[in-house]
Amino acid sequence: MTTRTAFLAHCRTTLAGLRDEGRYREFAHLEKLAGRFPIYRWHGEGAGREVTVWSSNDYLGMGSHPAVLEAAHNAIAQHGAGAGGTRNISGTSPLHVALEAELAALHGKDSALLFGSGYIANVGALSAVLEALPGFHVFSDVKNHASMIAGMRGAKGVSRHIWQHNNLADLEAKLAAVPREAPKLIAFESVYSMDGDIAPIGAICDLADKYGAITYLDEVHAVGLYGASGGGIAERDGVAQRVDLIEGTLAKGFGVLGGYVAGNADVVDYIRSVAGGLIFTTALPPAVAGAALASVRTLRADGSRRAALAERGIALKAALDAAGLPRMPSASHIVPLWVGEAETCRRVARELLHKHNIYATPINYPTVPRGTERLRLCATPFHTDAMMAELVTALRAVLPTGLAMAAE
Amino acid sequence: MTTRTAFLAHCRTTLAGLRDEGRYREFAHLEKLAGRFPIYRWHGEGAGREVTVWSSNDYLGMGSHPAVLEAAHNAIAQHGAGAGGTRNISGTSPLHVALEAELAALHGKDSALLFGSGYIANVGALSAVLEALPGFHVFSDVKNHASMIAGMRGAKGVSRHIWQHNNLADLEAKLAAVPREAPKLIAFESVYSMDGDIAPIGAICDLADKYGAITYLDEVHAVGLYGASGGGIAERDGVAQRVDLIEGTLAKGFGVLGGYVAGNADVVDYIRSVAGGLIFTTALPPAVAGAALASVRTLRADGSRRAALAERGIALKAALDAAGLPRMPSASHIVPLWVGEAETCRRVARELLHKHNIYATPINYPTVPRGTERLRLCATPFHTDAMMAELVTALRAVLPTGLAMAAE
Repeated sequence: MTTRTAFLAHCRTTLAGLRDEGRYREFAHLEKLAGRFPIYRWHGEGAGREVTVWSSNDYLGMGSHPAVLEAAHNAIAQHGAGAGGTRNISGTSPLHVALEAELAALHGKDSALLFGSGYIANVGALSAVLEALPGFHVFSDVKNHASMIAGMRGAKGVSRHIWQHNNLADLEAKLAAVPREAPKLIAFESVYSMDGDIAPIGAICDLADKYGAITYLDEVHAVGLYGASGGGIAERDGVAQRVDLIEGTLAKGFGVLGGYVAGNADVVDYIRSVAGGLIFTTALPPAVAGAALASVRTLRADGSRRAALAERGIALKAALDAAGLPRMPSASHIVPLWVGEAETCRRVARELLHKHNIYATPINYPTVPRGTERLRLCATPFHTDAMMAELVTALRAVLPTGLAMAAE
Repeated sequence: MTTRTAFLAHCRTTLAGLRDEGRYREFAHLEKLAGRFPIYRWHGEGAGREVTVWSSNDYLGMGSHPAVLEAAHNAIAQHGAGAGGTRNISGTSPLHVALEAELAALHGKDSALLFGSGYIANVGALSAVLEALPGFHVFSDVKNHASMIAGMRGAKGVSRHIWQHNNLADLEAKLAAVPREAPKLIAFESVYSMDGDIAPIGAICDLADKYGAITYLDEVHAVGLYGASGGGIAERDGVAQRVDLIEGTLAKGFGVLGGYVAGNADVVDYIRSVAGGLIFTTALPPAVAGAALASVRTLRADGSRRAALAERGIALKAALDAAGLPRMPSASHIVPLWVGEAETCRRVARELLHKHNIYATPINYPTVPRGTERLRLCATPFHTDAMMAELVTALRAVLPTGLAMAAE
């Protein structure tokens, strides 16, 4: 049997298995309508209908903010569509430089460094740091994102310790079990995307100080959204200066594309100098950098969308609670709705879409553990009371009765 | 000593070492001027001057093509600045779907799959394929790009065999040394970026057939540029159907951003279903997909820029040869100019920039082996005869005499 025959057979068997298990992913085909967020046009079966999207990560609708669009248009007119090179080969424009300075200022750090995405930022920065000293021990919250795990796994000669989610006692026990002099890094997130809970950043920094560790904080679901100037939970809690490296994204709260790390000037310059995923890839287009810069500047200066996000989140939770729907606990703008079974979760999402013109992504294994399947909802500043009422009505119609009762 | 102290010391020592060795990278700060490519505005020391860039990977100037800019503007106006989600969570727009269909057609394949960059496409696709069957052997050309190496290294349980560059005898010897029934993949590029030479794709496919291997071809420096419709060297040589997976970029010849793989429908669907770097990252902005789609369509229909690139490449080589400058052999549009020593290479680039308003990136270790340092030049359709004459005059002024003589 040739490799081609064996490989094709493996692909087909795997795809059939995913279909049988109900884990085969069809990408929903949705057209974002700039002026009408969160209304999208549906292009799948029964195309042309308009649907209300409850699962966008454009949390503040900044992807449609007039200042952001104007900056993107200007950059395209002035600099063209692409950067035309890596950062090191003619791809570093004044917009990239200004954006990095703005992000450093946002987090109160010396420097920031752009990557093509938050995923690449985590992989590149974590592996660069963990390979810097021999015998690094990394302490990773069990719910850390796949990109952090990829960065930690990719680093050679590193011992990984997985601590229970947001559990300080478990973290301390694991820190204490490692020799005092060994280099240590604690890697964690602020807002966890699938649960909506928030890490005790200050207390984690206390443990880092006690055991001589450095800290790496992923704020991708918080930047733009929390803190007086949108610097994230670390800013909100007044502990940004205690965190060594803050990683963020320009693709969620800021509504565009790209990722970054911010920290000490020499540390960021070191990562810039050694991270493979940075030197060997084309820079972000000037229009992406320009749009992101406008978005960060807007959200630093004006907290009105942050306030609206907080208010809408409270309203959504109240509406779900009042209707007896099985909302999971959440300390943030992310509102998971419990389903607890994979096929039901997919059916519920399908019926919301086809019977009620509501799009909410079903979250299944491996993104969450089996048996904890859920819909992940988020009310942006543009989700109205009327949309919430429609959502609640639709959920009551499509969720199994037992489930809806369970939370009452 | 705490981790912070030790880590900071390591960063500072490493940065000082890179500076001492002359390998510290300063990103040149250059402003692309959309209507005037390849003229950029310099923003470093002596800012404001205009410079002619000879090291852009926007090989055809498509980053400033009116149809590409119009598509980008339209997509921003209609869909906003960012995708707002991963491909699986509301981030798959009609433009993404149309672009994937267009790329599949470009290569005569069933399907294509977008990634955030060519780097991620190589890492994601290669590791997905190589982990599909137990005991995979991968045969990698020694000059393969860092992203392919990262993809092969990232795959667990894989045996890597490095064959001499473009050397069919060495490849065959290594294929023959592995058990007949073992799964095998040959990974190679068409145009090698730092030398400008071209792989014998058909002959490599012959060996793949003989030894039952599948083939993975990186065409990032060829797509848009070669073949009747811009499908790359595989199209030019009439062998695209023989290659299992073709990987390409939208950030060089097509002038925008992003990467992709194209191949058999089930294989591409398999990669889509298992590649980690795809599911856990925000989709490319609709404007990037729209601009890239316009670029691919334009270059499939109209070969005039391809013809101009070929003519300008011949003209540049002739101009360098006529001036007795030490051009390295090249079978493509990429024209490396030999320097052979790191500090000289940097000095030459610095003097070109500051005395002659010419930007050409010095290529040093680790991108090329020590002792083979070079300038990497490329004449796009927009590099005029007058620009070439200026380049030749400037190179004669700044290159060491012995070097300039060596090639005469």
